Amino acid sequence: MQRDLKTVRAIMVDNLTVQDTEIQTALTSMLTDGGKLLRPALTILIGRFFPHHHNDLLGLAATVELLHTATLIHDDIIDDAPLRRHQKTIQTQFGKDVAVYAGDYLFATTFRLLAYHSHSVEAGRKGAEYLEKILNGELSQRMNHFNTNITVADYTNQIAGKTAALFEFASYLGTTTVDNLDPAFSQSAQQFAYNLGMAFQILDDILDYADDQETLGKPTLEDIQNGVYSLPLILAMQEEPTIKTLLQVPVLSTNQVTEIAQLVQQSQAIETAMEMASHYTDQAEDHLDALPDGEAKDILYALSDQLLSRQR
Amino acid sequence: MQRDLKTVRAIMVDNLTVQDTEIQTALTSMLTDGGKLLRPALTILIGRFFPHHHNDLLGLAATVELLHTATLIHDDIIDDAPLRRHQKTIQTQFGKDVAVYAGDYLFATTFRLLAYHSHSVEAGRKGAEYLEKILNGELSQRMNHFNTNITVADYTNQIAGKTAALFEFASYLGTTTVDNLDPAFSQSAQQFAYNLGMAFQILDDILDYADDQETLGKPTLEDIQNGVYSLPLILAMQEEPTIKTLLQVPVLSTNQVTEIAQLVQQSQAIETAMEMASHYTDQAEDHLDALPDGEAKDILYALSDQLLSRQR
Repeated sequence: MQRDLKTVRAIMVDNLTVQDTEIQTALTSMLTDGGKLLRPALTILIGRFFPHHHNDLLGLAATVELLHTATLIHDDIIDDAPLRRHQKTIQTQFGKDVAVYAGDYLFATTFRLLAYHSHSVEAGRKGAEYLEKILNGELSQRMNHFNTNITVADYTNQIAGKTAALFEFASYLGTTTVDNLDPAFSQSAQQFAYNLGMAFQILDDILDYADDQETLGKPTLEDIQNGVYSLPLILAMQEEPTIKTLLQVPVLSTNQVTEIAQLVQQSQAIETAMEMASHYTDQAEDHLDALPDGEAKDILYALSDQLLSRQR
Repeated sequence: MQRDLKTVRAIMVDNLTVQDTEIQTALTSMLTDGGKLLRPALTILIGRFFPHHHNDLLGLAATVELLHTATLIHDDIIDDAPLRRHQKTIQTQFGKDVAVYAGDYLFATTFRLLAYHSHSVEAGRKGAEYLEKILNGELSQRMNHFNTNITVADYTNQIAGKTAALFEFASYLGTTTVDNLDPAFSQSAQQFAYNLGMAFQILDDILDYADDQETLGKPTLEDIQNGVYSLPLILAMQEEPTIKTLLQVPVLSTNQVTEIAQLVQQSQAIETAMEMASHYTDQAEDHLDALPDGEAKDILYALSDQLLSRQR
């Protein structure tokens, strides 16, 4: 697996052809340092269930990571993030303009690699559809900023786009390198990936409010100040309407956000959110159970466990 | 032609499926108001030389305009432009975050429509390659900001990407709807489109320094203040090194920029730039001459004339 992921990194770097040397170096460094390559691993493991075209499988795994990286670069613009994985973000190094175009560039490279390794128009269309879904998730999150009446359904709709759709795409790409695939396998694999992505995002959002944190992390603090309300806060607002009142203050101080976070921690919200995450985890496991036994399945179990328990 | 372009607008709008109603409305309005649809017209006219698949031709024409619109949305973020075609830009209406994702969304829709109407993996790959070329042009322009030693070759390389590549892509898409096409036709069409794009951009950049302007337009003024040096200024700097010295001032006032512009107007730069534009125009006409006679060719001549003379 580690050897395959090393090849995935090499494919990404070999396919980057930015004329400007500085930007090329910065993007190369972003693609090779520190990322867990979780999504490419998913693509590779799904492909491994059957005899498959290995070179194409690794190329498609690189495709999904390029797409992920493009979205990260654009997310960092929006969040004005100074660092990503302990490195300066593209925006911090070169400014907003380069970051916008560098992200766009990686979208282009994504679709070029996708065409090259998928050998199918259908995969190009599917890739574009998943990207539309991801962006609908992001846009819907942005349009719900400061909406204290945001519902759990709004939230699940958002994360189904911004997070789970990329997991689904990773799994889908794995299935495209297998000839004459049983549609039942594809469906179970996709459902597994979707539910894994949903659980992953919910647990990530719960972690922001973890009990043992003395103070909220800076990103969580800023999210609340910027009107980004995730599942624990949404659930807590429904239980305790005073939180909505506290959120009405035009510019929230650190103390005010800490007070809100304490109300979230004292409510049933974390527990309810954990139950929702468990629901998605159970669903993911059920769909994984349906896949044929073997090494690939064992590793996927281990990967899911690691992914979901790491965050608790 | 007008009927075809009306259909192109309808295809773009029908394929826009942003969940948020406000953003959907804003993008629809951007896609339907005011644009000359020059690039889709190029696609359609190239396709019309032969019997072709008409529905796909119009779909592909919509694809190239969607791609163009996506790049405009991102350009407007970078330039902090308040208006585009007399309408508020997406950034002005919804903020930077929505503008980044809305542009990304249109890239995704571009590749979905491309897969749907091209029926070929090759077209998806080509589309991605042209987009990479466009972004290399944009990135190279940004990396040459404030570079007073920028060469004419740097400039032509930039506009070959940011402008001409999209014209080439428009022409390429027109050729994909014709079965068993003569490669010589494709090559002439592509060369025509490339040279048309080059001439178009150079004339646009000359217009910024037009003699009869009392004062420089605000975009030109800001370009110079932001370190974006186009062909007339590059040529004038080579002729008159004092301009380089004047540009060293960290923050240029309006008066200082006006002084620089007057030096450009007094130099041979405008004349030399016009000669370069004429060179590309001549090349474009030579390649157009090589295409089979008929109505499509006549309209392309008229379109080129209109495009290139409008700007003088």
